[in-house]
Amino acid sequence: MKYRGISSTSNAIIKEAARLKRKRNRYESRLFLVEGEDLLDAALARGITPRQVFVLEGHDELAPTSTAIYACPWPVMEKLSELGSGSRVVAVFEFLDHVIPRDLTGGRGPLLYLCGMGDPGNVGTLIRSAASLGVSGVALAPGTADPYSPKALRATMGAIFEVPVFIGLESADLISRARAAAVDIVCADPHEGVELWHADLATDFALVLGSEREGVTEELLRAAKTTVSIPQEASTESLNVAMAGTVVLYEALRQRAGA
Amino acid sequence: MKYRGISSTSNAIIKEAARLKRKRNRYESRLFLVEGEDLLDAALARGITPRQVFVLEGHDELAPTSTAIYACPWPVMEKLSELGSGSRVVAVFEFLDHVIPRDLTGGRGPLLYLCGMGDPGNVGTLIRSAASLGVSGVALAPGTADPYSPKALRATMGAIFEVPVFIGLESADLISRARAAAVDIVCADPHEGVELWHADLATDFALVLGSEREGVTEELLRAAKTTVSIPQEASTESLNVAMAGTVVLYEALRQRAGA
Repeated sequence: MKYRGISSTSNAIIKEAARLKRKRNRYESRLFLVEGEDLLDAALARGITPRQVFVLEGHDELAPTSTAIYACPWPVMEKLSELGSGSRVVAVFEFLDHVIPRDLTGGRGPLLYLCGMGDPGNVGTLIRSAASLGVSGVALAPGTADPYSPKALRATMGAIFEVPVFIGLESADLISRARAAAVDIVCADPHEGVELWHADLATDFALVLGSEREGVTEELLRAAKTTVSIPQEASTESLNVAMAGTVVLYEALRQRAGA
Repeated sequence: MKYRGISSTSNAIIKEAARLKRKRNRYESRLFLVEGEDLLDAALARGITPRQVFVLEGHDELAPTSTAIYACPWPVMEKLSELGSGSRVVAVFEFLDHVIPRDLTGGRGPLLYLCGMGDPGNVGTLIRSAASLGVSGVALAPGTADPYSPKALRATMGAIFEVPVFIGLESADLISRARAAAVDIVCADPHEGVELWHADLATDFALVLGSEREGVTEELLRAAKTTVSIPQEASTESLNVAMAGTVVLYEALRQRAGA
């Protein structure tokens, strides 16, 4: 374990880490920042260790790892933080490079496919729900909010370290892989489709959720075996897309349990 | 329709309206602020009209109401806004004073009871889900986040104008009313309870959700006929409470539909 103090916000190590607040830099270096002890603990609990840990001076106990630890005063911690009030610990992790299985699901539950969802909170929340409700993985189309952004990570509450997340899967690629693996595509739509409880979701499938405003693309709707809809009573507003996705994953879990 | 311009942030009408950003002042005057055209439209669509509307100068079309309209420059609009970037329209509404029915549900679906939930986003999201999935109303215990706060209102996406919301219902009061009306109390718990799909939720009941950290209180757990739990696979994190509540309301809707 290396251990040293860094007192200046213009230190090269700090500047390099702070660059990861920008998406482009994350994807160039394939590194991301994790803020806060809860998220860090979630990673450590899964045996995933960071490259570097920055802790607020006097809080070394927050970084129980074998990697490089830097003790920093508050202004340095603030420079690394994107979540408003600052964090007492910020860590640098390598991208969790999962490889999507050839058969898409490996028989381990539905694959959740997010296509064009713009809100990082929704993406993170769905990763959390997906981990809870038993999916084989979560795949994201290009143009979907970055799961490695601080807001998305916080919304996952650590589930990002638990469920395989596949980034940058093109719709056409999903469609051809699903066809090859004989896995059905199921789209969720707030307005049109089979009533959710009448859809057959007991075997593995790829669940497609679209963008908050536009919904699922025509291309995916055409490729789908089924489009499901949650019957809703309200006139003004339908369920939020993260809620809707969670409900569909619950229904699939219920059906798999034979209940 | 009265129409006038207000150019100063220290105008008495503006100061009076801006006071409503504080919860205590809202409850003293029984008035609340609604920010943004989407929320305002949701109210107007239900025939609920504001007392006053403040619009950004040159955007009178955003306030199609018969009430007092004030055109204001951007600094005045910012003074009225609590949602970061400011809004082009802010309106003052009277509290939506719903009276809880003697029989709790009136045979119109489950009553959702939130007890101690601290996050206004969760409270607002659940009001939105509740409106979509067909409840008779949403009741809130003292100490629960205020549904009239800007964050909660935004999360309801207008559903606050659609579903009856009852504020300040004590747990003991809920319990005695439920007993008198022969309505079952059902608690949701992330860890212990009947598997959700094995609970009987086809007839009206009061669904109790607790705080994010502490869950449901002992008093309510003891009074409950059933405690339900959503079977979950993840080791680190369970579903967010807003997700869990939405899933239980979906399951109840499914059972009521006989599916």
